[in-house]
Amino acid sequence: MTRSAIIEQISAFMNEKIPFQKDLGIEVTQFNSQQSEVRFHWKESLIGNSPMQILHGGVTATALDTAGGVVIMASVIDKLSDDASLEKVVERISRCGTIDLRVDYVRPGRGQEFIATATIIRSGNKVAVARMEMHNEDGMLIAFGTGTYIVG
Amino acid sequence: MTRSAIIEQISAFMNEKIPFQKDLGIEVTQFNSQQSEVRFHWKESLIGNSPMQILHGGVTATALDTAGGVVIMASVIDKLSDDASLEKVVERISRCGTIDLRVDYVRPGRGQEFIATATIIRSGNKVAVARMEMHNEDGMLIAFGTGTYIVG
Amino acid sequence: MTRSAIIEQISAFMNEKIPFQKDLGIEVTQFNSQQSEVRFHWKESLIGNSPMQILHGGVTATALDTAGGVVIMASVIDKLSDDASLEKVVERISRCGTIDLRVDYVRPGRGQEFIATATIIRSGNKVAVARMEMHNEDGMLIAFGTGTYIVG
Amino acid sequence: MTRSAIIEQISAFMNEKIPFQKDLGIEVTQFNSQQSEVRFHWKESLIGNSPMQILHGGVTATALDTAGGVVIMASVIDKLSDDASLEKVVERISRCGTIDLRVDYVRPGRGQEFIATATIIRSGNKVAVARMEMHNEDGMLIAFGTGTYIVG
Repeated sequence: MTRSAIIEQISAFMNEKIPFQKDLGIEVTQFNSQQSEVRFHWKESLIGNSPMQILHGGVTATALDTAGGVVIMASVIDKLSDDASLEKVVERISRCGTIDLRVDYVRPGRGQEFIATATIIRSGNKVAVARMEMHNEDGMLIAFGTGTYIVG
Repeated sequence: MTRSAIIEQISAFMNEKIPFQKDLGIEVTQFNSQQSEVRFHWKESLIGNSPMQILHGGVTATALDTAGGVVIMASVIDKLSDDASLEKVVERISRCGTIDLRVDYVRPGRGQEFIATATIIRSGNKVAVARMEMHNEDGMLIAFGTGTYIVG
Repeated sequence: MTRSAIIEQISAFMNEKIPFQKDLGIEVTQFNSQQSEVRFHWKESLIGNSPMQILHGGVTATALDTAGGVVIMASVIDKLSDDASLEKVVERISRCGTIDLRVDYVRPGRGQEFIATATIIRSGNKVAVARMEMHNEDGMLIAFGTGTYIVG
Repeated sequence: MTRSAIIEQISAFMNEKIPFQKDLGIEVTQFNSQQSEVRFHWKESLIGNSPMQILHGGVTATALDTAGGVVIMASVIDKLSDDASLEKVVERISRCGTIDLRVDYVRPGRGQEFIATATIIRSGNKVAVARMEMHNEDGMLIAFGTGTYIVG
């Protein structure tokens, strides 16, 4: 299986087989070790502050953690040998995990669509750190985040 | 309306009217400025790592942020005068919000039930800080968290 | 006293009258609500890892917290009326303080000079959040940081 | 060299040979993988807020990071074989380093003596997480912290 075929399969896996992300409607729209991106649309079920009609802080945290995890996984795959099998790739990325996460809420979570992007700021064999941002469709910055991940 | 009647109404509100928490099955089980607690049960839809069958980090972040928010709101209500109307109370607590959240993931999120507790470590008129922990039903510590909240 | 005279006095105050910053050799080189900057030079007394000859993590934390505090104070001064006296300004900024700080160490602290810059990502009447970065004289990124500050 | 002789030598090394800690007067008073402790005394040169006479936030961050590093190093030494030479021990612990540090400032840093303690909340072969607290001599809690460390 070629590298790009593997990346396609993993992307599909992440969009279809991770129940919590699927439930929220989070879709991986860039799966790349340079920069990754996930998106989701506003819906009633994501509200955390009903009187104010704003996203739950946990939704934002989920989107940021997901974007960070995606860029980390893309970077882990980059470092595997070209002939790594799909099973090997899945085995490696399923051992990745978040060690710690910080979210800075900048503005109330309002909008039609939300875009969370992530880049790696520290890359290593054991641990990697990603920086994330979430904007809405108007380019308004909603939140920043930083995640430290074990890269297994 | 008495203070305890108001607290009961707000608890009911938090359990029924916050879509994202209802979706996850998060229930407020202690609503108190000394210590607050929320609980939820394991279900497939909360999985983030399918091969490993563990909770999504965003679920844990949501539970911790919710527990922190509850203890902060309880403390805001404590400081209101005894004859504050329900409307006044709702208006005040809907202006509370998370400024930043940090989560330390200690162990994989596995279990039947998850219990997140929160206490206040810094209390002020403008900003308050809560510390949170999430255990499973066996008392295994899954995650720690700290949240800084604006108290409106 | 004009606004620019006040800013000059406060800058001088920060460079001369804050013992810990003076001890480390931290100098405020930009004092501005848009972006602030502090600098310091390598010296033996700042080492934390002797075998590796790298800065103590606490030095980096100090520089980032200082840069963040400076941009926050500049923004507080910006919001005061033009005829605020020096006493009033000092009184207001001495009530500012760090609520929480996160530092991400990206590379070992090595170099001749270190430059920490800060910008505000959330500005409010009660609380403000700043983002910081520290580079060495070659433009190598040493650390990132985020600080949440009470703005008195 | 026996294990306890090595620990004594490493303690002495940390108290004498780390310039920044020596400068601040930070002394390792417990060097143990269960709980570690460092202490320092108030002195003028540690002030960050002159009008209010309180410690610089960077001093607190330094003490917490140091306490966290000490408990991590103690745990790394615990895992080495009993006949590891002093050189081997120094080589291993000099590869430990802070990945990220979070500090929550709870009360103004005032007192005669400050005691920072640390325990490990996540232990691993690649990365470990420590929780820290700093009190003054009256038992007043000044700050909390969490540090994520690479354990080489």
